[in-house]
Amino acid sequence: MVDITDPKPTKKAASRRDFLKAGLLGGAAVAASAGAARAAGDPLITEIQDWNRYLGEGVDVAPYGKPSEFEANVVRRNVPWLTADPVSSINFTPLHELDGIITPNGLCFERHHGGTAIINPADHRLMINGLVDTPLVFTMEDLKRFPRENRVYFLECAANGGMEWRGAQLNGCQFTHGMIHCVVYTGVPLRYLLEEAGVKTNGKWLLAEGADASAMTRSIPMEKALDDCLVAFKMNGEALRPEQGYPLRLCVPGWEGNMWVKWLRRLEVGDEPWAQREETSKYTDLLADGKARRHTWVMDVKSVITSPSPQAPVTHGKGPLVITGLAWSGNGTIKRVDVTLDGGRTWQTARLDGPSLPKALHRFYLDINWDGSELLLQSRAMDDQGLVQPTKNELRLARGENSIYHNNGIQTWHVNNDGVVENVEVS
Amino acid sequence: MVDITDPKPTKKAASRRDFLKAGLLGGAAVAASAGAARAAGDPLITEIQDWNRYLGEGVDVAPYGKPSEFEANVVRRNVPWLTADPVSSINFTPLHELDGIITPNGLCFERHHGGTAIINPADHRLMINGLVDTPLVFTMEDLKRFPRENRVYFLECAANGGMEWRGAQLNGCQFTHGMIHCVVYTGVPLRYLLEEAGVKTNGKWLLAEGADASAMTRSIPMEKALDDCLVAFKMNGEALRPEQGYPLRLCVPGWEGNMWVKWLRRLEVGDEPWAQREETSKYTDLLADGKARRHTWVMDVKSVITSPSPQAPVTHGKGPLVITGLAWSGNGTIKRVDVTLDGGRTWQTARLDGPSLPKALHRFYLDINWDGSELLLQSRAMDDQGLVQPTKNELRLARGENSIYHNNGIQTWHVNNDGVVENVEVS
Repeated sequence: MVDITDPKPTKKAASRRDFLKAGLLGGAAVAASAGAARAAGDPLITEIQDWNRYLGEGVDVAPYGKPSEFEANVVRRNVPWLTADPVSSINFTPLHELDGIITPNGLCFERHHGGTAIINPADHRLMINGLVDTPLVFTMEDLKRFPRENRVYFLECAANGGMEWRGAQLNGCQFTHGMIHCVVYTGVPLRYLLEEAGVKTNGKWLLAEGADASAMTRSIPMEKALDDCLVAFKMNGEALRPEQGYPLRLCVPGWEGNMWVKWLRRLEVGDEPWAQREETSKYTDLLADGKARRHTWVMDVKSVITSPSPQAPVTHGKGPLVITGLAWSGNGTIKRVDVTLDGGRTWQTARLDGPSLPKALHRFYLDINWDGSELLLQSRAMDDQGLVQPTKNELRLARGENSIYHNNGIQTWHVNNDGVVENVEVS
Repeated sequence: MVDITDPKPTKKAASRRDFLKAGLLGGAAVAASAGAARAAGDPLITEIQDWNRYLGEGVDVAPYGKPSEFEANVVRRNVPWLTADPVSSINFTPLHELDGIITPNGLCFERHHGGTAIINPADHRLMINGLVDTPLVFTMEDLKRFPRENRVYFLECAANGGMEWRGAQLNGCQFTHGMIHCVVYTGVPLRYLLEEAGVKTNGKWLLAEGADASAMTRSIPMEKALDDCLVAFKMNGEALRPEQGYPLRLCVPGWEGNMWVKWLRRLEVGDEPWAQREETSKYTDLLADGKARRHTWVMDVKSVITSPSPQAPVTHGKGPLVITGLAWSGNGTIKRVDVTLDGGRTWQTARLDGPSLPKALHRFYLDINWDGSELLLQSRAMDDQGLVQPTKNELRLARGENSIYHNNGIQTWHVNNDGVVENVEVS
């Protein structure tokens, strides 16, 4: 087994930008059914096991349940060398261990700018001020009296994959793509609150501010605020988790995670965008000519194969192999995902499975019969706006090599004959 | 506040079967927007709070996250006097605290017959034997090589609400309706495994057997097995929880929870149903004439208002009030939910919100402007087969008063002028 806790670049990976496409599976492999007959003498079948012999624990043991002890590897992981301090850092969702489109709350990646604020909901307030007819302050109880809605959305950090701009670096999709999660949010459409306050005609922008130690602040155009934003207090049915903004966070569907202000305490209406730290020196894209793109809010169409991947190698040898991954677009739904086994020479359309919801993760599968040859796996997503996920080189050609944010380039995994998987690039 | 940890019958509730419908809100209340302007002197607004002043914990603290300390009341609860021992008992999902349609894994109710089996997935096997061409034994890795699917299903214990057959008993929807949860299951369609084994032409029934200390066994007709059953290894994206059958459980969509065999270890194909304990002395419905209904598998159309409810009283006084609840049907989707504020004299159609998926929970809302009068709240669901949720008295008329299972009768909550809610019945 590979060491899945070590995301450091391998020597090989760093030099593999021009990995040769040789000796790969020719053409499309065909999905086949799997299953194996076992020898009749297997003691796990013929002998009574302890769990069948002795009573287990009762229903009074775990008021709030936890995962199995055998799933101890399915955790968020941070990368200590990535930032100066863990209170202003990132940990990553273990995408390689998950399936479907919902991320369990305990595994949703964290990105903090001043650590997790711990707030008693009884002491939390949301203020709306600025260019409004009536400035308002809401308690949590006030907010729960408005009509509410439930929507499934992905939340992706703008920096997801940022370390990969200059070449394959991190050996695992948890680290290359794990700054994303997807949950069901329950909250009040933001437009209801703005209507309650009465936005003045020159109120064209909104400043969202968090109550944490970083007082995170971002400018949001009024059109978006009135369109599909939510002021959310629940995720996956229960209260937001502390690290996700408990008791209140803003949802800005399809847009970069930094704008989804956690511990939301204030919404100021203004007539032009602000120029806060997190939308000037950060969360802008430095181009090759020294200029910076700003207001790059939408998370573009993207996908990644989550298994096989460096942390989820093929351990069962030849034969039936489930290739699976995630696709998403901040513009809407995913219409199609193609998968290549040979680094882009030939493509097959993957099977999309589960609900297809706008601005939510989509799950795809390609069931193949692996002949044991090397693979260069890639996935390429297309959204309902007709946008197609670009290659990393196309991105670099357009934006240079200084960027951190908005890397939606196609990811390549190399699978060797033994099923070991590495992060590589193909030119 | 009411004591939400005490489900014991109140004296009042026990005598309220013929609760009088007097002094209630006349006619339909109209939804209205809420929100309150606060005084400018609120120190929570004017003063900097600790969570804004001091850095919080970093991303290295919680590899697997937990709920906020302020949500300590949002837990499963068992009722010690209900059964002789907690290893063969029930705890209940806190429906009154949840929203949307997804139940977090840590809050999914438990029902065990021999406690929770703890099984290392490396040691788990699934055998298919009986009337098949090739008996098979699968490891977990084998199963994960088959094409898999993701589906959202509710799982309801047949005994959900069983304590209420003879009258209003338990003061809280956690206890009256909390033997239900709804998650996204990931697994292999059972028909793929049966096709691999090759079911003989006289193979008309399946015996599903668990690996726990109760060796739970249930008979399932082959038509259902080949239709929509799943052999599931994930729930809400991550591995099944131990108390939900880790590493493998059978999903029998829309049918009673007892058939969703946990810790699934064997599937035997036969030519007629078995007569196991859990489908003869248990999970049959004793009628008034002493005969018992059996093979009552489908969970019928049902709904409940989760808030307001006895554990979720109205604490904010008059004005905008969100009434919300859940509806479901083992036959398919929910087409409509009606809500009455006056014990059934007048009905309003509730707003269904979120995805409408077959054999899954549906969330409904009715946003009203409460004038502070007493309410007799009920919800009534209709499914896409045209079936309508009956009253409890209609159920008793049809099946007598001996039943425990399959109580899908309409629930009534009485809300008094102070917003206190109790479990009552109306004749």
